[in-house]
Amino acid sequence: MRLTQTLRRAVLVRADAIATIDGDRVRTWREVHDRVRRLSGGLRGLGVKPGDRVAVLANNCDAYFEAYFAILWTGAVIVPLNTRLAPAETRFQLDDAGVTVMLFGEEFAAVAETLKPQLPGIGAWIGMDGPQAPADQALEDLIAASQPAEETVREAEDLAGIFYTGGTTGLPKGVMLPHRALCAMAVNLTMSLKVDETIVNLHSAPMFHLADIGTFMATMVGGAHVFVRKLDETVMLELIGRWGITHIFTVPAMIDRLARHPAATTTDLSSLKVLGYGGAPMPLGTYDVARAQFPTVDFVQGFGMTEMGAHTFLEARHHRAGADPEKMKSVGQPAYGYEVMIVDPEGREVPRRTLGEIVGRGDNMMAGYWNRPAETAQALRDGWMWSGDAGFMDEDGFVYITDRFKDMIVSGGENVYSIEVENVVSRHPAVAECAIIGVPDDKWGERVHAVAVLKPGETLTLEALVAHCRAEIAGYKTPRSLQVLDAPLPRSAAGKVLKTELRAPWWEGRDKRV
Amino acid sequence: MRLTQTLRRAVLVRADAIATIDGDRVRTWREVHDRVRRLSGGLRGLGVKPGDRVAVLANNCDAYFEAYFAILWTGAVIVPLNTRLAPAETRFQLDDAGVTVMLFGEEFAAVAETLKPQLPGIGAWIGMDGPQAPADQALEDLIAASQPAEETVREAEDLAGIFYTGGTTGLPKGVMLPHRALCAMAVNLTMSLKVDETIVNLHSAPMFHLADIGTFMATMVGGAHVFVRKLDETVMLELIGRWGITHIFTVPAMIDRLARHPAATTTDLSSLKVLGYGGAPMPLGTYDVARAQFPTVDFVQGFGMTEMGAHTFLEARHHRAGADPEKMKSVGQPAYGYEVMIVDPEGREVPRRTLGEIVGRGDNMMAGYWNRPAETAQALRDGWMWSGDAGFMDEDGFVYITDRFKDMIVSGGENVYSIEVENVVSRHPAVAECAIIGVPDDKWGERVHAVAVLKPGETLTLEALVAHCRAEIAGYKTPRSLQVLDAPLPRSAAGKVLKTELRAPWWEGRDKRV
Repeated sequence: MRLTQTLRRAVLVRADAIATIDGDRVRTWREVHDRVRRLSGGLRGLGVKPGDRVAVLANNCDAYFEAYFAILWTGAVIVPLNTRLAPAETRFQLDDAGVTVMLFGEEFAAVAETLKPQLPGIGAWIGMDGPQAPADQALEDLIAASQPAEETVREAEDLAGIFYTGGTTGLPKGVMLPHRALCAMAVNLTMSLKVDETIVNLHSAPMFHLADIGTFMATMVGGAHVFVRKLDETVMLELIGRWGITHIFTVPAMIDRLARHPAATTTDLSSLKVLGYGGAPMPLGTYDVARAQFPTVDFVQGFGMTEMGAHTFLEARHHRAGADPEKMKSVGQPAYGYEVMIVDPEGREVPRRTLGEIVGRGDNMMAGYWNRPAETAQALRDGWMWSGDAGFMDEDGFVYITDRFKDMIVSGGENVYSIEVENVVSRHPAVAECAIIGVPDDKWGERVHAVAVLKPGETLTLEALVAHCRAEIAGYKTPRSLQVLDAPLPRSAAGKVLKTELRAPWWEGRDKRV
Repeated sequence: MRLTQTLRRAVLVRADAIATIDGDRVRTWREVHDRVRRLSGGLRGLGVKPGDRVAVLANNCDAYFEAYFAILWTGAVIVPLNTRLAPAETRFQLDDAGVTVMLFGEEFAAVAETLKPQLPGIGAWIGMDGPQAPADQALEDLIAASQPAEETVREAEDLAGIFYTGGTTGLPKGVMLPHRALCAMAVNLTMSLKVDETIVNLHSAPMFHLADIGTFMATMVGGAHVFVRKLDETVMLELIGRWGITHIFTVPAMIDRLARHPAATTTDLSSLKVLGYGGAPMPLGTYDVARAQFPTVDFVQGFGMTEMGAHTFLEARHHRAGADPEKMKSVGQPAYGYEVMIVDPEGREVPRRTLGEIVGRGDNMMAGYWNRPAETAQALRDGWMWSGDAGFMDEDGFVYITDRFKDMIVSGGENVYSIEVENVVSRHPAVAECAIIGVPDDKWGERVHAVAVLKPGETLTLEALVAHCRAEIAGYKTPRSLQVLDAPLPRSAAGKVLKTELRAPWWEGRDKRV
């Protein structure tokens, strides 16, 4: 299967139905199909050949959606760029992927201006929102001036996209996802969510991220797409009421904000069927609030990583009243048709409820890291994708994440899982958010170090924190030092705390991999 | 993806849940998984290597289910044999596929006895229901005597099964289905039916036929399987009540029989969620009866052929009250992620509502015909599977089947679609069932010939039939000769009328391909 089949089917069966909604602009599948083919014709005119890399740097919008399909229709490879990066980071990725054409949204004109002279290999800069500098051409002009192109039909194993990993470890790596993998992710989500053409999908997760695989999932079933240009719960509530949104994929923190928003009680939200979330299990407090506010909505968790998409799902029935609350602490069960296993360092499956590394196998899996044979060989071993996540599986195949292996702290020979300590520290009444990291310690090798952001007007001492923790966890897990930040924790685009940044100053000149 | 992933997931998440029910015998996924691995060990002991062909000739039963998975676990290829064939036909297929191990059910011991001396290439004959002659060994003894084997992991494009076509045209051809194709069929059905682990699937369609792709679909989601050894509506109703069957896949004629059965009003059928059907659109009369009898059941049509599985689905919402009755005459819309197109003889797409040949493209597609390069080249052209079905597509992508091209009659230069004439003839009050074929005619080239089976006590003359038809269809479509049969029409295992057999005596020594 290839990704363009989703568009071909949508226009075949739903030509005059709504395809995309961006602000007041509404387009049918017939219109989108026409624009995609013209944009593909335009890209060919710019010299784009099958296998060439075309990058997009933009906030969520209908043109981003069209760019995905037009690039694939051309047989080329999309490189969707993280919108939160510094220009130097963006330049690294453009250079690393050997991008030859760049599409950018108006919010990124300044970045493009900075980068253009530094990247002579990029032959065309296309302004997605108009002809503004440094664009060589505006997207609309390119579409208007080009003839519809025939599709360059690619095979399942041909490369469809290079998605750079969030940068929580070292240099970003380009994850090579063939059509086969992205199709499998869309199919898995369709099966787990049981969607059909009645879906009205809100693109609130960033479109450069696999959390927004809804691009292909909702297209495959012929549903409609609504775009949120900038993540904002007020706007999201307004769009639900205006367009009858049925499905949203976001993070638990956003579900919490939606549920607590005053407009949630005054807006007609009856269309909403599914709130999907990822990145972390949902805190029970958030779930209670959300459940009360959205009593008829199904909650579904997808757990994944760029290298293999969502490989476990905690389906709606495991969230409903009467479901086992223990399972709510898990990230769910292996996706249909996908394999997930917990292994020891030699790759042998460990018994249930025994900690190990999570590995996955199946169509979701990446083809490797772009130009990184050593890292690829490290990640893809014996046909399995080694996730770097530590966890265990219960007797019903539910997976529980303990930590990232690199976030595990080895203190005095004992393994300390940072998430376990964070769960305790975050319940201290003065703490707004926290991260637990390992820092060098002459006596213990590493010691448990707490980084905390406090609630307004609160104070916290190490002694008070230790007293709070000792009531719940063993002494060797208790933080031995505390750092109070006066800014929010640094986070990746997916909302993950960037512990690498927090650890870096402590380990400078030392040999721990941060 | 490969088919064994469905079993691996099922035992991972549902080890102690019911996997199979055959009569009073109930097995969990843990037990089935153990038996499959032991049977695979046994097959290896008999010399079966990856890529070898292993045949099964049996009625539906739990051992058939285990055989599917054990053969695939070994990396071998299953050849599921049509149970209705004459021994000579079965011998042809075993010989053609180069089968080396044969599993047979007790009902087929006499066939096996006949064939064994004629097929010295088959090194082992395994009795699925016991050690009876001519078995070299009983399945249970093989399982008991063997150690569980590790899976031989195959790739998506490796061959999983050879399914011989129903024999409605000439010599049977072995359709080569790789893991990729059978997985796609299971995935498409899962998406269209929105099933999950609560499914209790009744295997009433023959397990040698793709209509029973539920073997993999219901396993993928971890559901339960119940087997009907011999198709019988009384037994089926009993099983629904006893085991809480949720899903049945069958033909419209069987739905009619289930709905009209006296036990349908006295049995608790509240578990039933989906009645899937294929082979033909549902006659509206049957639908009315079925709807009244099963008011809460969803009806779903899958339309397919061995070479590409079900490639269109008429989903439940198109059957419900308020749906467009015109669409009920169609075979539905292209499966998610699959492409269907209506083309002229040169392969160019024709406008909507224009008649042409149906072609399909996507993961469902066969790899080719076993040892038949010429037929393969004829069927797989430019990446598309040419179905041989004549039909058209409406503006919403619904496909309507007009005829098989070879069943089309060319009379006096006019094309006559046999299905159209059959629809009219079958409404004559004296007619129980009928088939329209073309027979040689000196004046017209071919003439329209009616073969009819009458209701008990009825008579029919050609004059009366012509008068009936002329009220509804043009003269050139009206039968010019009539043949009344005193036995039911010959049908394939899938329930299709074998027009080849009806045509054969008329065309002997002539050059029309029957």
